Amino acid sequence: MKTEIIGVGNEILIGNIESNNATYLARKCAAMGLTCLYQTVVPDNKDCIVDVLKLSFTRSEMIFVCGGLGDAEDDYTKAAVKEALGVSTDSADVRVLENKNGKTAGYIFEKEGRSYILLPGYPIEMISMFENDVLSYVKSKSENYIETKIVKLCGITEEEINKTLEDIMKNKTNPVMSTLVKTGEIHIQITAKGKDEKDAARILKPVITEIKTRLNEYIYTTEEDVELENAVVDLLIANELNISCAESCTGGMLSARLINVPGVSDTLKATYVTYSNKSKRKILGVKKSTLQTFGAVSAETAEEMVKGLASISKADVNLAVTGFAGPDAGGNDKPVGLVYIACKVKQDVVVNEYHFKGNRQKIRVSATKEALILARKCLLTYFSKMTFGNQ
Amino acid sequence: MKTEIIGVGNEILIGNIESNNATYLARKCAAMGLTCLYQTVVPDNKDCIVDVLKLSFTRSEMIFVCGGLGDAEDDYTKAAVKEALGVSTDSADVRVLENKNGKTAGYIFEKEGRSYILLPGYPIEMISMFENDVLSYVKSKSENYIETKIVKLCGITEEEINKTLEDIMKNKTNPVMSTLVKTGEIHIQITAKGKDEKDAARILKPVITEIKTRLNEYIYTTEEDVELENAVVDLLIANELNISCAESCTGGMLSARLINVPGVSDTLKATYVTYSNKSKRKILGVKKSTLQTFGAVSAETAEEMVKGLASISKADVNLAVTGFAGPDAGGNDKPVGLVYIACKVKQDVVVNEYHFKGNRQKIRVSATKEALILARKCLLTYFSKMTFGNQ
Repeated sequence: MKTEIIGVGNEILIGNIESNNATYLARKCAAMGLTCLYQTVVPDNKDCIVDVLKLSFTRSEMIFVCGGLGDAEDDYTKAAVKEALGVSTDSADVRVLENKNGKTAGYIFEKEGRSYILLPGYPIEMISMFENDVLSYVKSKSENYIETKIVKLCGITEEEINKTLEDIMKNKTNPVMSTLVKTGEIHIQITAKGKDEKDAARILKPVITEIKTRLNEYIYTTEEDVELENAVVDLLIANELNISCAESCTGGMLSARLINVPGVSDTLKATYVTYSNKSKRKILGVKKSTLQTFGAVSAETAEEMVKGLASISKADVNLAVTGFAGPDAGGNDKPVGLVYIACKVKQDVVVNEYHFKGNRQKIRVSATKEALILARKCLLTYFSKMTFGNQ
Repeated sequence: MKTEIIGVGNEILIGNIESNNATYLARKCAAMGLTCLYQTVVPDNKDCIVDVLKLSFTRSEMIFVCGGLGDAEDDYTKAAVKEALGVSTDSADVRVLENKNGKTAGYIFEKEGRSYILLPGYPIEMISMFENDVLSYVKSKSENYIETKIVKLCGITEEEINKTLEDIMKNKTNPVMSTLVKTGEIHIQITAKGKDEKDAARILKPVITEIKTRLNEYIYTTEEDVELENAVVDLLIANELNISCAESCTGGMLSARLINVPGVSDTLKATYVTYSNKSKRKILGVKKSTLQTFGAVSAETAEEMVKGLASISKADVNLAVTGFAGPDAGGNDKPVGLVYIACKVKQDVVVNEYHFKGNRQKIRVSATKEALILARKCLLTYFSKMTFGNQ
């Protein structure tokens, strides 16, 4: 079904806010198998809204309009709908959508085979209304039942995934698979089209099972709202282990991500941001000679950091990060982006070297993500060793 | 000048990436006094690009097109420009823009009074090309010279700003002022239109001076690329002071923001993420009885955290944060969003209570921002006391 998304608002057009509603709706449309061909943003100006509404009538079947629905003097969406399409939102043919988070109602109406869905501009109101009422409406308009599943992976490249799954990804039209590359991780989205819910599930199942069989060790979740930090914390909680961190270049980002997970209190022991050499020495006991000989950004320092951390934290799992996030670095052989991450699970220590690209912020975000990936990997190795040891 | 921004790319239309190029260009256009009336995103499909290009010719004078400019088989922008506007990018009338960060060139051409600016889709390439070549081109097309200045404030509400500046903001057409509310801070954007650079500066100067006079204590910068953490770190460095943090609910975000500033190493002493009660007791020496009587989220605990921190960090400035970021809280009188922030500058301790709204992430980001605002405020108080004491 040809779909378009129209956003109304001066704030977006002067760049003061991003078009996040459009991104949200675009993702939802894709997951429901709708083909979104246009996203348009127009100002709080009746003529501009009228123009784009008339245009949408000529080219789309399902049209989402966000914003400008209130009763303020610069809200023109209702008036524009009346003028462009001859439909009054007061009319009995228009379904009113309740707004549980605000005052501005939403509306759904149909005109000559097109569906118009008018939603408020505030994301929190729009999203809640979408989930409560719009989702089921859109599904009811589709001839098929569309179901999308996500598989999130880390520690593997897109090429490796494509190679491993080539035979089941290529030339498939139902289900369709696409990969989305994010910093340090990759999501595979699998969308199936069925006669009904059961049929769509039947089509999805063997493909998901096959992906799990082939890529099991890299999959950290198949739940849409589970992030990498949830996966790591869940592993820790399930095995009654706790964790502590010593952060240099990431500077607290790693701990902050672990604390994204509510209820992490019993699992996360105190962590330390040791950005200066002095604090690495004083708090973690890194030797002065190590810092002088190998530098603060070295495998040797990372190893002493994680060992020193373990001795003060008494945690089961310890993570230490040190690196050059820029703009300064350590000369030719130690460029910006060089990061060492050390992980100690019980007695086993692993130190990895990484080379990240991008600006200071991007390098730190990448290092944080890789620290979580390393922790997950070391935990899995530890568990498999335990299992093997017990056999 | 009527402006529109066209983005080309399937990835945006399925919600995999945000329309960040459009947001960037929209902000730049607004700062140059251009009136952006439409933002459109179309797929990697020649017909759709042709349609929107034809439409732009009927309604805009300055048209930006981002993406689809390469030579891959799904890059259709050049072919669409040829079909819709009859202009070949190989033609001698088309100016080629060098891409210093990639392979895909950009283009500028004019047709019957309209300017078309074709830019690559990768933000890093687009932004660099915009700054190197496009900015001066757009300025040369404007009859007037447009200059925008920004004033960033914290610790004051939008209403207070509007009230304080009412007489100079209202009904002003040159310069025009607008406020942008961000989490914990407010930016005032002042845009002047002059005959030339000197004239625009002449129009801006008295207004900026007046804003500074009236709101001086709330202004932390008038530089576009200076963030609150830079302002705090600059204050510390200029006065040869150092800082340390103890973070509970913010969980490392505060330290991570300070470490956004390159070269903070000598200024930021070790900081501690003490999320559990045990770590507050063990590391910071918060008394068990305080935690039992008043709770971990209380003014009393915040005060003991900051004092305990000061005794181990020996820093000049100490910041401690404790709060309920949700979903759990401390009952009716201690709801989600309740946060205490303590700041100790030398011997002076201030403890503030805050009530933030939003989800777990939003509350933690707000608390981080307010901790920076409080640190700045306490530093200014300390400096004025010093000055007063020396007189």
